Amino acid sequence: MKKIYLDHAATTPVKESVIEEMQPFFSERFGNPSSVHRFGQEAVMAIDKARKKVAHFLGAKEREVGFTSSATEANNLSVLGAAGGGHVVTSSIEHSAVLNPCKMSSGSVTQVPVSSEGVLRVEDVLKEIRSDTTLVSVMYVNNEIGTVQPIAEIGKAIGEINKKRKKKILFHTDAVQAANYLSCDVSELSVDLLTLSGHKIYGPKGVGALYIREGVTVSPVMYGASHERGLHPGTENVPAIVGMGKAVEEIDFRKGEEVKRLRDKVIDEITSSISGVTLNGSREKRIPNNVNLAFEGVEGESLLISLDSEGIAVSTGSACASHSLSPSHVLLAIGLSDRMAHGSLRISLGNETTEEEVDHLISKLPPIIKRLREISGR
Amino acid sequence: MKKIYLDHAATTPVKESVIEEMQPFFSERFGNPSSVHRFGQEAVMAIDKARKKVAHFLGAKEREVGFTSSATEANNLSVLGAAGGGHVVTSSIEHSAVLNPCKMSSGSVTQVPVSSEGVLRVEDVLKEIRSDTTLVSVMYVNNEIGTVQPIAEIGKAIGEINKKRKKKILFHTDAVQAANYLSCDVSELSVDLLTLSGHKIYGPKGVGALYIREGVTVSPVMYGASHERGLHPGTENVPAIVGMGKAVEEIDFRKGEEVKRLRDKVIDEITSSISGVTLNGSREKRIPNNVNLAFEGVEGESLLISLDSEGIAVSTGSACASHSLSPSHVLLAIGLSDRMAHGSLRISLGNETTEEEVDHLISKLPPIIKRLREISGR
Repeated sequence: MKKIYLDHAATTPVKESVIEEMQPFFSERFGNPSSVHRFGQEAVMAIDKARKKVAHFLGAKEREVGFTSSATEANNLSVLGAAGGGHVVTSSIEHSAVLNPCKMSSGSVTQVPVSSEGVLRVEDVLKEIRSDTTLVSVMYVNNEIGTVQPIAEIGKAIGEINKKRKKKILFHTDAVQAANYLSCDVSELSVDLLTLSGHKIYGPKGVGALYIREGVTVSPVMYGASHERGLHPGTENVPAIVGMGKAVEEIDFRKGEEVKRLRDKVIDEITSSISGVTLNGSREKRIPNNVNLAFEGVEGESLLISLDSEGIAVSTGSACASHSLSPSHVLLAIGLSDRMAHGSLRISLGNETTEEEVDHLISKLPPIIKRLREISGR
Repeated sequence: MKKIYLDHAATTPVKESVIEEMQPFFSERFGNPSSVHRFGQEAVMAIDKARKKVAHFLGAKEREVGFTSSATEANNLSVLGAAGGGHVVTSSIEHSAVLNPCKMSSGSVTQVPVSSEGVLRVEDVLKEIRSDTTLVSVMYVNNEIGTVQPIAEIGKAIGEINKKRKKKILFHTDAVQAANYLSCDVSELSVDLLTLSGHKIYGPKGVGALYIREGVTVSPVMYGASHERGLHPGTENVPAIVGMGKAVEEIDFRKGEEVKRLRDKVIDEITSSISGVTLNGSREKRIPNNVNLAFEGVEGESLLISLDSEGIAVSTGSACASHSLSPSHVLLAIGLSDRMAHGSLRISLGNETTEEEVDHLISKLPPIIKRLREISGR
């Protein structure tokens, strides 16, 4: 049975060109970047080269880019290390890697609600800003419903507010789901902190990057020898950093056009061939590779398992919450009932997804839905 | 010029068998272990297999082994996550990945001094234990001078003390430098927490393991989606975990015999052919692959660079502190003067180190030392 992977929001395969770039750093150029000798200096140069690539992608200076062990670590550094115990404004649909550090933060946190389409209104963010607000953290693209948030507009508005303030409000965005298809230029977005993940952009797992605008101080969340200027202690994961640099370098936004065409085909065909299906999130303000559909009278989990037995890999909510029985906080935030949230499915396309694969999904889905509805008697 | 790597305490090359084991997990079996579908379940099984191997090595239960992004993270979890704000007893020669979290801990910390040979006395540890002590953390093998600490004896003694206490004292050991050559059986050692590192045992960078005895609670240092049972949030680094499992499986203590023979040859030949050289640390209580020598009238840094220009990679202190100008805290702790500490060199052999390589070092060193002493006029 051919396996069809349509869960690219959970993780992506590492590209061959990325694996090739990483390869020498396992057993040939394996030095510890902290070592003074040649093996160490080779590793330092490799990291610097990767840093240059990431900085170029972000329109940032090299010294503004730090590597971490994951996007989760980058988000923790942003929330726990940069908010300084002040008030944090965030959205109700953030990833748990932002929401959970917010819960642990010593300052208070305001979650701004989103529209029924899953998009944040700039004015709703601004009206929550208080005199003690130190950080605003809003994800660029939601990982479940793929909605694109107005980051540049929020950034610009915070910039205006900061003109009248002594203590500047920092603006962070988790751009993990955006980087394949949308500009992450930090000047365009007016962000102070931005998170990237290796394994969401056809690079390796075990590496993230955090952009930190010059002059912004971030306290570490772990302590040890000073690596990445104290931000991330522990020997640098050189092959993964090299791989992340290559993956970032190879990002090609033009791929989004074909992905978007296939995405729209999936949405159109499924919503027209099956009754009682609605698209979760916005149709327009949506990342090119995300489809999220609510099926009336169907358990998302059963649907996922049925599709899996046909060799098609999709997800219900986010992969990170897949073992939770409670309905997705994102779907509840856009107004879905518990029942409809439980009946939702995320289909996330990749750059290598073919029309044939998409057609296969489109043909397999109607009989599965029919059968599941018969079983549940709905 | 042939390159000779004698800095295995800083990092080790990844073995070919380990790279092979990791390979499929980059682009074929690349799933996110949190995903419910087959790609995800393949990843879960791969992690479980690796966990089984590590548990077997430690004589532990599988559920007592967690994977982290580094040994530094495992040490941070042990100190910040397990001490619970109580008093911590540690040694004066710990790695900064233990000493620095200790500094950030909300409880007080006592650093126990070591003998001039760099070995901790069990009674010196015990006498620092107070009624509010919650954690004792002592490294198994020192990363600079290779001294082996009496972990089993300390563990046993703490066990005796715990019999009379309501709130048990936890015992942690950083076994990063020990695992290639010494038993890390957690029952023999009577430890509650034990840290391993992938890249010190011919496995990959970017992965560590933490043994946590059943019943012991460790709070996370980062927050996000619950992976590794909440211990380490963020998508698991599947290839690195798989590689770590394989590396642990292939540990063969018998290799220590030949390594020890070569180590002793290095020590004997250098101390007899060059005047004013002393061995730092104990001759007997020493890991098989570590040589650490103090050269009178020589700057360790100059020596390192001279050797590097001959293609021989060694280090002064630990790699992790290599960019610091202050003398090694470990060498000062065993009573060396600033000057002698600055004149020290660490030569750490590996399992693949050959007699030819060692002979090359032995022949190159005397003329270099002679020249450096002439330059400095000492």
